[in-house]
Amino acid sequence: MSFFTKRYHPPGTGPGTLRLPDKPNPTPPRITLIDYSDTELQEIEEVTPEACRAALERPTTTWIHVQGDPDPDTLTRLGVLFDIHELALEDIANSGQRPKTELYDDQLFIILSHPLLEDDYADTEQVSLFLGKQVIFSFHGGSHDPFEPIRKRLRKHSGRLRSKGPDYLLYALADLVIDQSFPVLEQFGAELEDLEEKLLAAPSRETLRRLHELKRDALLLRRMLWPQREVLNNLMRNEEYPIEADIRLYFRDCYDHTIQIMDLLETYRDMTTGLLDLYLSSVSNRLNETMRVLTVIATIFIPLTFIAGVYGMNFGNKTDSPWAMPELNWYYGYPLVWGVMIAVGVGLLYLFKRKDWF
Amino acid sequence: MSFFTKRYHPPGTGPGTLRLPDKPNPTPPRITLIDYSDTELQEIEEVTPEACRAALERPTTTWIHVQGDPDPDTLTRLGVLFDIHELALEDIANSGQRPKTELYDDQLFIILSHPLLEDDYADTEQVSLFLGKQVIFSFHGGSHDPFEPIRKRLRKHSGRLRSKGPDYLLYALADLVIDQSFPVLEQFGAELEDLEEKLLAAPSRETLRRLHELKRDALLLRRMLWPQREVLNNLMRNEEYPIEADIRLYFRDCYDHTIQIMDLLETYRDMTTGLLDLYLSSVSNRLNETMRVLTVIATIFIPLTFIAGVYGMNFGNKTDSPWAMPELNWYYGYPLVWGVMIAVGVGLLYLFKRKDWF
Amino acid sequence: MSFFTKRYHPPGTGPGTLRLPDKPNPTPPRITLIDYSDTELQEIEEVTPEACRAALERPTTTWIHVQGDPDPDTLTRLGVLFDIHELALEDIANSGQRPKTELYDDQLFIILSHPLLEDDYADTEQVSLFLGKQVIFSFHGGSHDPFEPIRKRLRKHSGRLRSKGPDYLLYALADLVIDQSFPVLEQFGAELEDLEEKLLAAPSRETLRRLHELKRDALLLRRMLWPQREVLNNLMRNEEYPIEADIRLYFRDCYDHTIQIMDLLETYRDMTTGLLDLYLSSVSNRLNETMRVLTVIATIFIPLTFIAGVYGMNFGNKTDSPWAMPELNWYYGYPLVWGVMIAVGVGLLYLFKRKDWF
Amino acid sequence: MSFFTKRYHPPGTGPGTLRLPDKPNPTPPRITLIDYSDTELQEIEEVTPEACRAALERPTTTWIHVQGDPDPDTLTRLGVLFDIHELALEDIANSGQRPKTELYDDQLFIILSHPLLEDDYADTEQVSLFLGKQVIFSFHGGSHDPFEPIRKRLRKHSGRLRSKGPDYLLYALADLVIDQSFPVLEQFGAELEDLEEKLLAAPSRETLRRLHELKRDALLLRRMLWPQREVLNNLMRNEEYPIEADIRLYFRDCYDHTIQIMDLLETYRDMTTGLLDLYLSSVSNRLNETMRVLTVIATIFIPLTFIAGVYGMNFGNKTDSPWAMPELNWYYGYPLVWGVMIAVGVGLLYLFKRKDWF
Amino acid sequence: MSFFTKRYHPPGTGPGTLRLPDKPNPTPPRITLIDYSDTELQEIEEVTPEACRAALERPTTTWIHVQGDPDPDTLTRLGVLFDIHELALEDIANSGQRPKTELYDDQLFIILSHPLLEDDYADTEQVSLFLGKQVIFSFHGGSHDPFEPIRKRLRKHSGRLRSKGPDYLLYALADLVIDQSFPVLEQFGAELEDLEEKLLAAPSRETLRRLHELKRDALLLRRMLWPQREVLNNLMRNEEYPIEADIRLYFRDCYDHTIQIMDLLETYRDMTTGLLDLYLSSVSNRLNETMRVLTVIATIFIPLTFIAGVYGMNFGNKTDSPWAMPELNWYYGYPLVWGVMIAVGVGLLYLFKRKDWF
Repeated sequence: MSFFTKRYHPPGTGPGTLRLPDKPNPTPPRITLIDYSDTELQEIEEVTPEACRAALERPTTTWIHVQGDPDPDTLTRLGVLFDIHELALEDIANSGQRPKTELYDDQLFIILSHPLLEDDYADTEQVSLFLGKQVIFSFHGGSHDPFEPIRKRLRKHSGRLRSKGPDYLLYALADLVIDQSFPVLEQFGAELEDLEEKLLAAPSRETLRRLHELKRDALLLRRMLWPQREVLNNLMRNEEYPIEADIRLYFRDCYDHTIQIMDLLETYRDMTTGLLDLYLSSVSNRLNETMRVLTVIATIFIPLTFIAGVYGMNFGNKTDSPWAMPELNWYYGYPLVWGVMIAVGVGLLYLFKRKDWF
Repeated sequence: MSFFTKRYHPPGTGPGTLRLPDKPNPTPPRITLIDYSDTELQEIEEVTPEACRAALERPTTTWIHVQGDPDPDTLTRLGVLFDIHELALEDIANSGQRPKTELYDDQLFIILSHPLLEDDYADTEQVSLFLGKQVIFSFHGGSHDPFEPIRKRLRKHSGRLRSKGPDYLLYALADLVIDQSFPVLEQFGAELEDLEEKLLAAPSRETLRRLHELKRDALLLRRMLWPQREVLNNLMRNEEYPIEADIRLYFRDCYDHTIQIMDLLETYRDMTTGLLDLYLSSVSNRLNETMRVLTVIATIFIPLTFIAGVYGMNFGNKTDSPWAMPELNWYYGYPLVWGVMIAVGVGLLYLFKRKDWF
Repeated sequence: MSFFTKRYHPPGTGPGTLRLPDKPNPTPPRITLIDYSDTELQEIEEVTPEACRAALERPTTTWIHVQGDPDPDTLTRLGVLFDIHELALEDIANSGQRPKTELYDDQLFIILSHPLLEDDYADTEQVSLFLGKQVIFSFHGGSHDPFEPIRKRLRKHSGRLRSKGPDYLLYALADLVIDQSFPVLEQFGAELEDLEEKLLAAPSRETLRRLHELKRDALLLRRMLWPQREVLNNLMRNEEYPIEADIRLYFRDCYDHTIQIMDLLETYRDMTTGLLDLYLSSVSNRLNETMRVLTVIATIFIPLTFIAGVYGMNFGNKTDSPWAMPELNWYYGYPLVWGVMIAVGVGLLYLFKRKDWF
Repeated sequence: MSFFTKRYHPPGTGPGTLRLPDKPNPTPPRITLIDYSDTELQEIEEVTPEACRAALERPTTTWIHVQGDPDPDTLTRLGVLFDIHELALEDIANSGQRPKTELYDDQLFIILSHPLLEDDYADTEQVSLFLGKQVIFSFHGGSHDPFEPIRKRLRKHSGRLRSKGPDYLLYALADLVIDQSFPVLEQFGAELEDLEEKLLAAPSRETLRRLHELKRDALLLRRMLWPQREVLNNLMRNEEYPIEADIRLYFRDCYDHTIQIMDLLETYRDMTTGLLDLYLSSVSNRLNETMRVLTVIATIFIPLTFIAGVYGMNFGNKTDSPWAMPELNWYYGYPLVWGVMIAVGVGLLYLFKRKDWF
Repeated sequence: MSFFTKRYHPPGTGPGTLRLPDKPNPTPPRITLIDYSDTELQEIEEVTPEACRAALERPTTTWIHVQGDPDPDTLTRLGVLFDIHELALEDIANSGQRPKTELYDDQLFIILSHPLLEDDYADTEQVSLFLGKQVIFSFHGGSHDPFEPIRKRLRKHSGRLRSKGPDYLLYALADLVIDQSFPVLEQFGAELEDLEEKLLAAPSRETLRRLHELKRDALLLRRMLWPQREVLNNLMRNEEYPIEADIRLYFRDCYDHTIQIMDLLETYRDMTTGLLDLYLSSVSNRLNETMRVLTVIATIFIPLTFIAGVYGMNFGNKTDSPWAMPELNWYYGYPLVWGVMIAVGVGLLYLFKRKDWF
């Protein structure tokens, strides 16, 4: 995930300006229309905005899903046909928006963040939802359509999805996007547990890198997921929104999930901080142990080497002065020096042992 | 305690779906029914959901306790018989929920976290409570039934438990779950005091590991216990809940306990942070002390060894040049060298002493 | 101060249970009764609960003070005689409660934390106050009665204490307990200033220990004193409490004191954190200085010792090869070696000086 | 960006005092007047305050832009002519104000912070806006006029800028100033990503310096941009402000941008903190690795050098005592010593390998 | 600035007790009276409380300023003459109070903190203000009278000070006290910028000390200035206070200043923390560099010294065994050893270079 993911127009551009992104559009938009009631279901793929307009005439619930990056032309046509506010169109085009809800006349506009499991980092994609009378629009930027499970439930007529109105479908879509955080967070938790074990055993440069990446990902995920609390709170409580009372109960359940997701992310963030502290403490600790080994060895042998150096001096060679290293002439001189050296070494070892150094 | 403990369905699953957990159910559910009034008490163990239904006919208070992981079949039967909302059933099945209260029509649904004392870490188990008219359901996931003390009080007719309605029983159950935190926190506090003493004496790798685990456990406990404040606040204040005014006073006492528990957890968290700082400071300090020992020893002996090395050179052996190590020929050469070496060593020791190094 | 100081009953115990503490009661309760009006004052020591009851008949203000750990029997008798709620009695018995106010019918129940100056750490004791009609109860757990100054003011008839009702006496008692924090915090501040000076001069292991203890004490004091803000806020504002409007102004003054106490505690906490950072930085700094001394000495003498070692080799002894250490035969060989060694040493010293190492 | 950027008068100066800044005014003010309606547009550059007054007579929307540091004289004349409150004039003159809104009678006064992209740091300039009846004043302190894009849109008659009143122009100006943060933050994010890569590869003193500067800039930007949330919130919600309902929707969009900007700045701040932790950990890690190399080398060679030193002693030279270094006379003495030294070296290497030190 | 600056009476002292401070009063109080209206101004220095009373009879605005530590006697006389509440008198006497506002009947009592620029640290002095009908009292504890600029403005009849009532004078006094923070904070900012430069160049023990002092001063200033937000908020909004609507606008400007001061202090606090992190990182970095120098030098010369030591052994002296150091007899033995030593040295240097160590 890049640190800055929001698309924006140069400051001073008029609101509602739709513009092609700089790089060529990787995934051309595909519009899928599903029209359903309790008794019937019609599914048309690769439909034009104009064909969608016709579906609105019937008293069924219509779900229009636009997969891929919508080009300015498609967006403008949808905007004109379904009377969508220019600011909403701009928000759909400029992906990387903060999750939010907005009520334009009778149309409820919702932006959500869809978290993604990638190889070794987390990313989010923007999902934009529109709730009008008998109609729901959904926009998803990536190449993979996340809403297939909902379509399966619609086709199978399982649960109460078919018998309820578009607000229940909105709940189903939002719930899917929100719950997508759970597998991401589960993997996060597993990685953290794995890292904790490694840190307590033997911290390495690689664990530090992975830990830093997890912390950064938690931060970026939090930025994109946090505002969903507010979104769900609005959907649950705002009396102006065109959502029926018994459906609000379901949004309340969904709201509880966003809170639990935030709890988890906060806890993970605190945990990565805790693990970083553990890393630092472990490295300090190991440094201390390293230095003790060096200190013990050096402190014992440096005086001994000095003693050996003393008797390597050549004072006894050239003069016969009785002061010239008489130790060299002693009968037991050599074993005596060994004795002194062993005594010094053992004494120092004993001292270190008593100071509890190894 | 694992970092991620919530059970969840794959995103996109319909609400109210009940599904067997992946691993075989370790503890099959056992339903216990207690039916009591001020004058009589009937206790039936291992009862079927259908038999429980019959108890509702009588004007007594009925307490139905489901111990163990409820299988989808039992839950569905209970749901149909007692008209329980599908979202509540899903929350009971998918344990690891955040504590919360929810009012479905006349039924008050409560999820609490029951902390557990394990060998060397803290864990929580989900307790789900239902308050209906004249009936209370309680669900507890583990193998150990925590509510035995309440049953004893019911049987002994002690206090006002028998003479009050199901809302007082709800209080008794919630109070027990909440107060379970006190022994856990008491042990926490004792361990922290123990660790503090060890850290001030001699920090080791083991203290670091234990400290980290305590910090992590405080974090995980906090995540599961924090929302209980909100739960108790609701029970104490929400006028819509079917709880009588004089019972609310008891919930207020219980709310004070949740606040005190949070105070303690916060304080413990701050304390583990403080102890970690202390650990780091102690390790730094000891490293500094280690390095001083090495520096003092090395700095004193390295110049001395150099001097000894100088007079170990063989310049005096092969030539008779008066410049060839004349010191070796001096009458007092050897004692003089000792004098110089002792002077250097004592001088350096004095310097270190004056700089307050040991 | 212990980390966990709350007394509690085993979870599942009925509310209002009074039980003897495990260790024998160190201070048996002594009841003192003062009965006063503007014109008269009667003081009886070591009175029974039943005798106190009689005092309520008169239109004077009655102050009943229970000093020491009240035994269950005394508490139960007081509870029955004065119609005290069982939850309040339990809170008095289970000391270590969080400060709070509670209104039971007409009785206002208040718990406060009375900070104590001990040798080298801070502690708190629970003070429980009851405000009824014409009567005030006060309970204090320790062996030392803190309210003697109030009794003196009552006896001397100084200020307006005698001419006002029990709510003003309540203010006088609460004010005394709250203000007890000032001398404790003053000593805290003095110790912090002392520690700061020591840290800037020469940080030692002892300063670290004292610093950690101060930080921990600030944390524990904060936990026990923080809720008093809420208590005083209630006494100042809650219209249901039986306190007259002109007395509320005095509680407002007292509230300002609790806020100032919290400000001080927060500042002290930030300061201990700042001092700990200072400690760590100082230790790092000193380690760096230690290492530089070692590095300078070792880096200068290690090459010199190597040179001396080279000319201590015995290549010149056994062969007459012109390649066998011809330097040993040079007329100025020895002074030349000294020259090289002095040049190397001075050169390295110059390098270190230029890099600003000492 | 300097740490303290607010201009202020000496304390005690009367409100509304306008005074020349100490250093000579670098950019003399240039007043540009644009007078427009849906059908016509008149643009006059370098106009006097008095000439501006005349434009107010017409029913068109008038936009008066003052570029550069306004001198006291110009400000006073504008104040008198357009009846501007003395406190507002003082706020325009004393740049470095906190963003805010203020309603003086019918005039809405707004201060915003215009972020700037400089070489390697971020800065802000004060933009002051006035919304009166049919008139908008804008003041911008620097030499570069940021509002040229708006003027272009006015001239091109693109969007609805010309057909709407001064409140929509206010939105366009504010939107431009707010959105100016996006390119600044995009560059910030790119630098952070760049620094992160460098830190994971090889942390240097230069990365530390750059990191510190980014952190400080994030802090300073945050201080100047944070209050804009409150400003936009007021513009969006305050019913007293002379802004029409459909324009408020646009301010709501602008408010969302300020929130997203704050989210980004907060995330960046957390990220710089995370990167600093990474830096410290990396340096600790490298120090540890450095010390291990030293320890391994020193610990292996110090004992070997001692052994070599022992047999460099001259005990065997001067006496024939059988105790005087008999090893020197052994036939295989020399290879044996090599054998011992190789055994010691390999043994120590094996030990370090087993302890996983390199 | 001392850590604990509040004066207080022993706990249990009655409210309103006025007592001489322990140390003799350093600055006896001097009362200055200014009596003014739009047309006349009378100024009397060193007036008695009783003489002040007379001024109240006239319909002019009266400003009574008490400079220095007021003795109990003066305070009591003022209290009786002007009917000042005993709690207010106590707050004036016990300086070091938290800034606050209090309404006693018709009298508005305000405590503010007046920051001071001292040599190298910041301090605050208590300013107490009273707003009555046609009268303002001001008390300032130090020896220096800060209100001279206001008096000058009164005498010069500049601005609207003379034509407005006592509430505008209150604004002028409060504004002066609040704005006094700007020069203090400006110097703070300059010192921080200076310290930052020094830290990036060469951190020393002295920079650490100064940094710590700045951090502590920011903390102490914040404690004394923070509550002024609340004070100004009250003055701006509280409808009960005797302040006219058009004056409230000026207090709003003053409130904006307190917020900006808090913003600055918060930013400075974050900056000192950032600088401390920078200090720690720099020290770590330098330690690392020091250690690398030592490691490179030691690691290169230790093996070389060992080689030299080997050939300093005396095995070749006493036996003619062909195994006894035959290298010494080689024709090119000595240059070969030099070759080996140079190869080892260059090889290690190459290794360190490749690992990017210097």
